[in-house]
Amino acid sequence: MNTAPHVVIIGAGFGGLTAAQALRKAPVQITVIDRTNHHLFQPLLYQVAMAGLSPADIAAPIRSILRSQKNASVLLAEATGVDFANHEIILGGQGAPDGQRQERMKYDYLLLATGGRTSYFGHDDWEQFAPGLKDLDDAVEIRRRVLMAFEAAEKEADPKRRRELLTFVVVGGGPTGVELAGAIAELANFVLARDFRTIDPEAAEILLLEGGPGILPSFAPELSESALQQLTGLGVKVRTGAQVTKIDEMGVYLGEEKICTATVIWGAGVRATALTQSLGVETDRAGRVIVQNDLSLPGQKNAFAIGDMTLFLQDGKPLPGVSPVAMQMGNSVARNIQNDLAGKPRENFRYFDKGSMATIGRKAAIAEVGKLKLTGFAAWLFWLGLHIWFLIGFRNRFAVMFNWAWSYFTYQRGARLITGRRLSLRPRRSIAEDGKVKQREGEYQVQ
Amino acid sequence: MNTAPHVVIIGAGFGGLTAAQALRKAPVQITVIDRTNHHLFQPLLYQVAMAGLSPADIAAPIRSILRSQKNASVLLAEATGVDFANHEIILGGQGAPDGQRQERMKYDYLLLATGGRTSYFGHDDWEQFAPGLKDLDDAVEIRRRVLMAFEAAEKEADPKRRRELLTFVVVGGGPTGVELAGAIAELANFVLARDFRTIDPEAAEILLLEGGPGILPSFAPELSESALQQLTGLGVKVRTGAQVTKIDEMGVYLGEEKICTATVIWGAGVRATALTQSLGVETDRAGRVIVQNDLSLPGQKNAFAIGDMTLFLQDGKPLPGVSPVAMQMGNSVARNIQNDLAGKPRENFRYFDKGSMATIGRKAAIAEVGKLKLTGFAAWLFWLGLHIWFLIGFRNRFAVMFNWAWSYFTYQRGARLITGRRLSLRPRRSIAEDGKVKQREGEYQVQ
Repeated sequence: MNTAPHVVIIGAGFGGLTAAQALRKAPVQITVIDRTNHHLFQPLLYQVAMAGLSPADIAAPIRSILRSQKNASVLLAEATGVDFANHEIILGGQGAPDGQRQERMKYDYLLLATGGRTSYFGHDDWEQFAPGLKDLDDAVEIRRRVLMAFEAAEKEADPKRRRELLTFVVVGGGPTGVELAGAIAELANFVLARDFRTIDPEAAEILLLEGGPGILPSFAPELSESALQQLTGLGVKVRTGAQVTKIDEMGVYLGEEKICTATVIWGAGVRATALTQSLGVETDRAGRVIVQNDLSLPGQKNAFAIGDMTLFLQDGKPLPGVSPVAMQMGNSVARNIQNDLAGKPRENFRYFDKGSMATIGRKAAIAEVGKLKLTGFAAWLFWLGLHIWFLIGFRNRFAVMFNWAWSYFTYQRGARLITGRRLSLRPRRSIAEDGKVKQREGEYQVQ
Repeated sequence: MNTAPHVVIIGAGFGGLTAAQALRKAPVQITVIDRTNHHLFQPLLYQVAMAGLSPADIAAPIRSILRSQKNASVLLAEATGVDFANHEIILGGQGAPDGQRQERMKYDYLLLATGGRTSYFGHDDWEQFAPGLKDLDDAVEIRRRVLMAFEAAEKEADPKRRRELLTFVVVGGGPTGVELAGAIAELANFVLARDFRTIDPEAAEILLLEGGPGILPSFAPELSESALQQLTGLGVKVRTGAQVTKIDEMGVYLGEEKICTATVIWGAGVRATALTQSLGVETDRAGRVIVQNDLSLPGQKNAFAIGDMTLFLQDGKPLPGVSPVAMQMGNSVARNIQNDLAGKPRENFRYFDKGSMATIGRKAAIAEVGKLKLTGFAAWLFWLGLHIWFLIGFRNRFAVMFNWAWSYFTYQRGARLITGRRLSLRPRRSIAEDGKVKQREGEYQVQ
């Protein structure tokens, strides 16, 4: 019987996977549990939503990634709670998709790394009209909606309705919103421009709404300003101080003002996954767990939490929800588990900021690395190289490079597919009476 | 105003697209109508179902394919009927997905090329347990079921249930069934073999059930025999004379015998799309329209039908439902429309059989070209080259070549993704009381 301590890692995102790999040579037995079978390279998810890449280009099976790591095994399951008293993680049962019966798994060390999900700031009913972008299904749904809007506009005779179909609203001026708005503009201007006969895709109106005074507020002011100019140059209309008060099937409301549109994408908020609510530990308003200096949960020395599901104050400020934070946290937890096993004291976590960047479009980006500030083509090349480099697995890296080179030189998109068995623009999901978001019944097409 | 005759083509499969392209220089105005936005390279669909290729690798937007053809425009819509008296095609309305209002479009020439769909020979209730393989959504659903079965087996403690999860049944010994059975065997033996810790994917049992006396009956006996040996060599158990009498959530029934399995794939039958039932013309038992010698509909000189939705007897035998037939038919109709416009008599259609082939797996196939008969590696190379060559569009051709080379040399699969918001193995679709197949409500995962 294997008596090595059992480390259970929930979530195979950047944080969880980094921790698992950092424990490669540790005398432990690792189980990585995720509710999907793949690790997702989330920074490129917007490219799937905008038909530039295929889902398989930015995702790799967790089993393949950890295949050669002998002390790790992978389990596809939904973690629904933790029994700290008995050192057990609860899988399946209530809160899990049907068919998954409840099971328990013992742990010696637990690492929670379940990440974030889209937050509508208490307006969950907006989700059906304004999908967020957190996983591959979201990305394929957004791709479907955007491409369908152009198709519906092509056959629309009513000019008012055609205008609504060609109006795209992105809510949120952070990196996700900026990427999405820039990518829609490029799709309309370069990719679709020559493909339609009735409409002119270049006449599409792309609006980026930001509630605060400026976009990308976490960057230096001159970089935010440059991003604004680059976005405007692509034809995106940026509106700051725009507080969304309502979203429905007609469009977006800013107080009295109504923006009529068929397509709204939500890039505004992130909160922790629902699991954090079941832990019985203190969370902030976004549901994030407030962790100790060594990233353990308060009162639970052997249970850690990392990444987007946590709130960690450094020098009085919360760390941002980005992958470098999650990865450094994963490494720190792996070191602390090994410190424990070696009888050494634990380290306190401290984030080392190597810089940040945001992409806007082809040859358009901003980057901030220490004192170095890049904009435009230089920033974009830097962004491109870094993202391709960090993609998991040789095959994905090569496939992404090829797809990008192809779309760069031909102005084509390789993944312009509308899938899912529906032609309609009506929202796919609706809110059931019990408040749960459910998928709408989709009719099976008989032709 | 454009007074060129209006040619309306319903369906952008091999037949419809060939006809549209053959009319490139004709003095006509063409509208290609399809219910999806992409042309699908159906012969490689089984590769998407088996995680070898991504959906975007075998599909290209119809708009892109016809972009430079000035006399063609593309419309995304569902054709629901034809008003022959008024020379109008009916789009949307009853029979179309919700949200699509009914519209009519005038035609001077009509070409119906809507293809086929899966037939359960009157047992439509089997569909929920045994999906067929006709479009990208089917392929992704089959991929999800097969990969989920291995994942569920990995965590299953009950050996009996584990055996059921690792039993895969393919119904139908034609080319589709043979491809699918071979591909599952390869997935289990080569791709997944090293990725699991508890189960041994190589222990999976793959059954191919054929009702008749042998598989691939349309080929020469020695080739069918070779295919059987190649399949057996991959570990597939082929059972001929196996008449399926029932399929339910427990498995497949052959009279008194019950095969317990969690995964059944249906590759047995094809019938014409539902549109043919609304035409008021004679059809065979599979709903196929019986066309005239010039491929026009009886009594409708200006309306043609081609491909899988038709029954055409040549030398007393019906032509097979394969893409070369559809493409040659498309070319013939294009010539006859031009003959009409030039005041020349129409030609009668005659199919020229260039040969046929079926693939079984890596280095395993059979091919029959005139008197030449190939098996094994030679047939596979032939199959590979021809399929890559005929793929639409440079990008797809290159992407497929790369993906295949990659999986050939590394024994990896690039698209091993389980997507769709469900972990469960329970069937996704169910039959509503009105007999329509509906999608089940899927729960949205909250973690």
